[in-house]
Amino acid sequence: MVDLTRIMDDEVFMAFASYATIILSKMMLMSATTAFYRMTRKVFANPEDCVTFGKGENAKKYLRTDDRVERVRRAHLNDLENIVPFLGIGLLYSLSGPDLSTAILHFRLFVGARIYHTISYLTPLPQPNRGLSFFIGYGVTLSMAYRLLKNKLYL
Amino acid sequence: MVDLTRIMDDEVFMAFASYATIILSKMMLMSATTAFYRMTRKVFANPEDCVTFGKGENAKKYLRTDDRVERVRRAHLNDLENIVPFLGIGLLYSLSGPDLSTAILHFRLFVGARIYHTISYLTPLPQPNRGLSFFIGYGVTLSMAYRLLKNKLYL
Amino acid sequence: MVDLTRIMDDEVFMAFASYATIILSKMMLMSATTAFYRMTRKVFANPEDCVTFGKGENAKKYLRTDDRVERVRRAHLNDLENIVPFLGIGLLYSLSGPDLSTAILHFRLFVGARIYHTISYLTPLPQPNRGLSFFIGYGVTLSMAYRLLKNKLYL
Repeated sequence: MVDLTRIMDDEVFMAFASYATIILSKMMLMSATTAFYRMTRKVFANPEDCVTFGKGENAKKYLRTDDRVERVRRAHLNDLENIVPFLGIGLLYSLSGPDLSTAILHFRLFVGARIYHTISYLTPLPQPNRGLSFFIGYGVTLSMAYRLLKNKLYL
Repeated sequence: MVDLTRIMDDEVFMAFASYATIILSKMMLMSATTAFYRMTRKVFANPEDCVTFGKGENAKKYLRTDDRVERVRRAHLNDLENIVPFLGIGLLYSLSGPDLSTAILHFRLFVGARIYHTISYLTPLPQPNRGLSFFIGYGVTLSMAYRLLKNKLYL
Repeated sequence: MVDLTRIMDDEVFMAFASYATIILSKMMLMSATTAFYRMTRKVFANPEDCVTFGKGENAKKYLRTDDRVERVRRAHLNDLENIVPFLGIGLLYSLSGPDLSTAILHFRLFVGARIYHTISYLTPLPQPNRGLSFFIGYGVTLSMAYRLLKNKLYL
């Protein structure tokens, strides 16, 4: 039997596991941030969520949208759209035997860029802060996809 | 050559594969549910979708939003936001050699909580049903992330 | 130590890696397409994005929605909702030792159907082009889930 625990002895794979876990945990923080703004600003999407603030017609006024909440939700969706390709392509890239230092450079750049993207989106910082951090993460993922397909294409 | 079919002899990995497949299939049901409500309630987002119900100006009245459809779409997006971290972190956690019964407890709690979350969202049940089931799933994923980073951090 | 680079000697896994990378790269194109339409049509979601087109009240008129942009965003979200289950279930299916030609048939059908789905959505082609391509991709993923659970269920 393959001793699966040994997969984690592979340094590239261990590095991928660490960076992927960190960026996924950061993405999960977006749910908590949305919940925080919804509670403190009393902005809800579902009637059953605002029952504690009033009954009937009185509760309906909390069913609204709010710039701050929508901003966090856009940042969250952008995370999903970018972290999913990173996870899929990054996992396969890690298994394709890349150079350790090249791989770690990719992972660090991606995680750094996505954290900076969130900061730029939520502060918000003036453009091109958010745009640049988006394109760095985007480029890193495409670079891994390119290396993967160049070496291992099998259709 | 590594006999990959043997990866499935690892019990933790097999359990992860089963629970991940079940929860992803449940998530896919949300697409079907959205389609069902769109057809039965005649609520569409694209002009080409309502051609069968009328032409020209007559068709435009079906381009609208509907509480029921929006509720399913919010539940679907919430699934995506929570199942993606579970998949990524759960896969890496499964490969990091956890205790079998601890791992299965994590998987069962997550899958149970997410199924209950969907029921709470679509019925809808009064709060805190949905809130609690959300936080159980959230906590399970963070617990796996914590164990992974504690044992295997490599930056 | 397990030589991880050898995982890529497994033909099913290599095929999965290639098709998954291709479809994820396609999905990433949707971000670029959204950005393209936002710039050329001057339609933005964030005040800081339209500063170059005017200051103060003058900039606010670019904070709007646009049919074309919303269409790309819906196609992107539909991609996410369908490619995430394909990635998770497809990875586990690839590791469960399926027949090579059956596996490749699944991957090809899925990737072809999703590319046609995007074309149908963005052109847009009349229904049932988009509906059919959606259901082919959906069916392929469910077929892999069924085979996985039939052979390897462990709860």
